[in-house]
Amino acid sequence: MILASASQTRARLLGDAGVTFEIVPARVDEDALKQSLLVEKASHRDIADALAELKALRVSASRPGELVLGADQVLSFDGALISKCESLAEARELLLCLRGKAHDLISAMVLAKNGAPVWRHVGKATLTMRDFSDSFLDDYLAQEGEGLLSGVGCYRLESRGAQLFSRVNGDHSTVLGLPLIPLLSALREQGVIAK
Amino acid sequence: MILASASQTRARLLGDAGVTFEIVPARVDEDALKQSLLVEKASHRDIADALAELKALRVSASRPGELVLGADQVLSFDGALISKCESLAEARELLLCLRGKAHDLISAMVLAKNGAPVWRHVGKATLTMRDFSDSFLDDYLAQEGEGLLSGVGCYRLESRGAQLFSRVNGDHSTVLGLPLIPLLSALREQGVIAK
Repeated sequence: MILASASQTRARLLGDAGVTFEIVPARVDEDALKQSLLVEKASHRDIADALAELKALRVSASRPGELVLGADQVLSFDGALISKCESLAEARELLLCLRGKAHDLISAMVLAKNGAPVWRHVGKATLTMRDFSDSFLDDYLAQEGEGLLSGVGCYRLESRGAQLFSRVNGDHSTVLGLPLIPLLSALREQGVIAK
Repeated sequence: MILASASQTRARLLGDAGVTFEIVPARVDEDALKQSLLVEKASHRDIADALAELKALRVSASRPGELVLGADQVLSFDGALISKCESLAEARELLLCLRGKAHDLISAMVLAKNGAPVWRHVGKATLTMRDFSDSFLDDYLAQEGEGLLSGVGCYRLESRGAQLFSRVNGDHSTVLGLPLIPLLSALREQGVIAK
């Protein structure tokens, strides 16, 4: 199986679960597709799904006969699709926006073979940030540093980021960007792992 | 703060979340308390809570002025309280029992100070095992080995154990034995971590 993603978190989740795979990051213009879908008023769920499909199909085209997993995660807040931050200053602004409120993480996966999708799944988790203090946020950003920028929400729930939240509703692997239980079920159906 | 538990998983969760603590495992006769509570027909939830309290109080008695966290996790299945397995043969039997069915993991935490409880919480997660094949189970036990015996359910959801399940309902840290979000909230109230 091929994982069409450069995300270390996704590779770790999949490897820890006992799946053997090769990593071939898909080179796609995510922003262009995202923008055109937003103009068409596509739902955030459909946008995540389309991005996951694009990545799976791109890699699948050059690897006939092999199963390719594409994945994408978007953050949906108050009707807006939030993009990754480029700097800690942007991250600070985003976290101040999310403070005290709930947002959704939408994680899409598509399996493709011979250039066509063969399975797809979209999972959602809803997270509520607590009303943390400004000084807590400053310390948090200083301690975590630019590693935060790798995630769409500028937090890492699996580390100190847990201190940001008052409520997490949804599967842990969905929060991390790869809903494992439905994926493992599909991989059993595809014969990648044992039943 | 003192963590009155020898569990590496709990120490990792707490450390990853950015909490500083010392580990002082409580020496208590868990089985004796469990048996006497079962005879009294206590609920599984109350048993987990009583075990967490016993551990917290035991360590607290010798560490005046300090905050001590006791924790316990029990597995509840079909009305029975399942104890830790002693061997891979027992683990095989347990997993065959749980196969295709749902069970509960109940995780209790008690914070104590000066020999008295100051906070308590019980979390529950419900997990459903898929109808895996006998040969899958044999491979699983061979690959995972005796490390499995450290958890009450003889599986590690955070690794290959994810392949055992068709559904996981509940918070990830509750499955791992330390419900983090409510605990962090209590630690903020107690002044252990910043608000």
